[in-house]
Amino acid sequence: MSIQQTLQMILRQVKEGLHPSDLLDQIDELKDEQKKELFELLSDEEAALIIQEMEDFDRVSLLRLLTKHRASTILKEMAVDDATDLLGELSPEEAKELLSLIEEEAEEIKDLLKYPEDTAGGIMTTDFISLPEDIPVEEAIIRLREVAPEAEIIYYVYVVDSRTRLSGVLSLRDLIAAGDGTFLHEIMFRNVISVPADMDQEEVARVVARYDLLAVPVIDEERRLLGIITVDDILDVIEEEATEDIYRLAGAGEIEGVSILEAPILDLARKRLPWLIICLLGGLLSGSVVGAFSATLQSIVVLAAFIPVIMDMGGNVATQSSTVFVRGLATGEIGAGDARLYLYREVKTGLVMGLINGILIAVAAYLWQGLPILGLVVGMAMFFTISFAALIGTLVPIVFSHYGLDPALSAGPFVTTIKDVTGLLIYFYTASLFFKYLV
Amino acid sequence: MSIQQTLQMILRQVKEGLHPSDLLDQIDELKDEQKKELFELLSDEEAALIIQEMEDFDRVSLLRLLTKHRASTILKEMAVDDATDLLGELSPEEAKELLSLIEEEAEEIKDLLKYPEDTAGGIMTTDFISLPEDIPVEEAIIRLREVAPEAEIIYYVYVVDSRTRLSGVLSLRDLIAAGDGTFLHEIMFRNVISVPADMDQEEVARVVARYDLLAVPVIDEERRLLGIITVDDILDVIEEEATEDIYRLAGAGEIEGVSILEAPILDLARKRLPWLIICLLGGLLSGSVVGAFSATLQSIVVLAAFIPVIMDMGGNVATQSSTVFVRGLATGEIGAGDARLYLYREVKTGLVMGLINGILIAVAAYLWQGLPILGLVVGMAMFFTISFAALIGTLVPIVFSHYGLDPALSAGPFVTTIKDVTGLLIYFYTASLFFKYLV
Repeated sequence: MSIQQTLQMILRQVKEGLHPSDLLDQIDELKDEQKKELFELLSDEEAALIIQEMEDFDRVSLLRLLTKHRASTILKEMAVDDATDLLGELSPEEAKELLSLIEEEAEEIKDLLKYPEDTAGGIMTTDFISLPEDIPVEEAIIRLREVAPEAEIIYYVYVVDSRTRLSGVLSLRDLIAAGDGTFLHEIMFRNVISVPADMDQEEVARVVARYDLLAVPVIDEERRLLGIITVDDILDVIEEEATEDIYRLAGAGEIEGVSILEAPILDLARKRLPWLIICLLGGLLSGSVVGAFSATLQSIVVLAAFIPVIMDMGGNVATQSSTVFVRGLATGEIGAGDARLYLYREVKTGLVMGLINGILIAVAAYLWQGLPILGLVVGMAMFFTISFAALIGTLVPIVFSHYGLDPALSAGPFVTTIKDVTGLLIYFYTASLFFKYLV
Repeated sequence: MSIQQTLQMILRQVKEGLHPSDLLDQIDELKDEQKKELFELLSDEEAALIIQEMEDFDRVSLLRLLTKHRASTILKEMAVDDATDLLGELSPEEAKELLSLIEEEAEEIKDLLKYPEDTAGGIMTTDFISLPEDIPVEEAIIRLREVAPEAEIIYYVYVVDSRTRLSGVLSLRDLIAAGDGTFLHEIMFRNVISVPADMDQEEVARVVARYDLLAVPVIDEERRLLGIITVDDILDVIEEEATEDIYRLAGAGEIEGVSILEAPILDLARKRLPWLIICLLGGLLSGSVVGAFSATLQSIVVLAAFIPVIMDMGGNVATQSSTVFVRGLATGEIGAGDARLYLYREVKTGLVMGLINGILIAVAAYLWQGLPILGLVVGMAMFFTISFAALIGTLVPIVFSHYGLDPALSAGPFVTTIKDVTGLLIYFYTASLFFKYLV
């Protein structure tokens, strides 16, 4: 299919009401020129719906293809929170120029831009419905009918007092189930779960998941209602935070923010290099341990054959310990106060695994090399290395998190280096203790 | 506070309408005897609400404290999908006995138990609202008022034809915004997004996230409506699947299903051992490479000092590659057809990173040991090891996923072993090429 045909097909599908998410792959195939043409042919509203579904890097480059005036009319049609996100990704000059063209919604967007993007304020929208507490159900339903097309979500109706402080919440279900003539304050639920504007988005996600909410209101210090966060944005937060943790745990740092299938190779390499350099220094440090024992090694060269298994096993156990701990913290399975208990249990688990694997490798080393004392040395070293790796794999993330650093960051090169240095020290020190039986 | 006081406080908070999620920590502090007492004092409905929020292992053990009759009356009050999950975790005999006591809801639960628990059918609920397409809006609203307290979610109203096949959907918002006298089939949205009962839960989550749904209907082959899946359950699925991937990527296998803060230490060790045994065998294999070059090593013992850095760097790059690829597949950032493109780009990235780190380590090795040729050997080995690690780190998960295995499983011991064996082979082979310049 030619590019022009793809363009025509996309246009037809838009008119037929295909969900914008389903158009993105096809739009991706267009060249910049056709993208520009396509978005000139779409209405502001159609364009806004599609842009809202796009990935960050795609929509920024698309917006730059359009005239400033057109970009501003599309922005006006977007949900306030999406428009704010998009403006936040542009340069300050571009954002300022576009904001000056938007008029009406500009104030709202400017207010939202003040909040850091990974906080409750940064992901909230100001398209929500609030009603005064002293009106009856039937009036509430009439008001809802008026505002329905505007508001992002009408399944929860927030109720405010005379000073616009959040005083209660009603689900649309409560409203429909209640009899006419009932006042909102009679049927509203007063224990509204809400979050402060500066709460971290990960914590907001945990609140929404814990209470099975479809949306959560965001309030200021005086309980005034600032905005709401809807569950579809929470789905994105959970996925984003899990990806961040996964990358960090793997020592892959911050590859986010670039498209891994499209970014220039040099950019991708640059994002991963800092971790590799730390790893390189750590590897040299571990190597210096081996170097320090080079006399021992030269006399008993067979010792070198067990360096990989000592390193790998220590690595696997340390990674297991860090991973289970860091993930447990993130999902809330391990509470902030449980770190000491987890550490204690992890060390015990490490001792059990160390014992079993120590015996296994001792037997294997004896069978392989025919030297019983070598089996004893390797087995003992394995026992200590694994026990120590379980300790380090938990302790380092605990220390990181104690000092306000993300514990996931510790699991890569840092834990690797410490467990390698200790594992190799234990191994060669044990070997030198039994030196005279081995040569 | 004494245990008896804790029990009284929990009771008071239940009566005051505190959200059940907020009671779990306190309930956890009770001994079995008090737990039994507490749940005897609660109403069936109160007990059901609390049990619905509990973790799997907690609620199974709680249910076993109660009499069969009491357990069945509580189960009746639970949402059908939660009751089904709970019964699925019991032994078949226990489940059968409880089902025989439940009567009414038993058929629904039995039907739901047929679906594997990680599929759409396994996580759906049958508490949903469907209305015939040929009734007017005002009649629809009356019917909704009648069923509102029963149904799990009423924000979407599913519309069915005369043969109960799903024909459209209406949001409650559409219904409220429409004028009286309008028939449902006139205003309903016909392109309903639905999922088949056997779709994997991870894929269901992706559908819900993609289209920003609050619920998705589950249908059979004839498009008959079987149930719905609500977004709060999708939040759990996304978190569960991310945890599974994180554990597998770390070579920590299946630690799920046990409470990491409560399970017996031996159980925890047993869950992690299979991975460690594979790692042990892999480590010995890598060691045999070192063993094969022991003559070279004995002549040039300084070579051993670079074994750790070669292994660690290969490991870090391979882990980065596997992690980014596996996570990209899971989030959909990398489509099924993009594997080849990703592999190609990853190898190029590996070459760049290999070149940079090869030069760095060459200089470091030269400065450390004062041997220019050693620098050359280590640098070349590093270049090839990193490039190869990027290739293996991507290729192995691709092969796993090609044969229907979870690619996340490959990233632990398998990739580690292959990159160690190849990395060490490359290193010692390069060294033996330059043997005469090094001794």
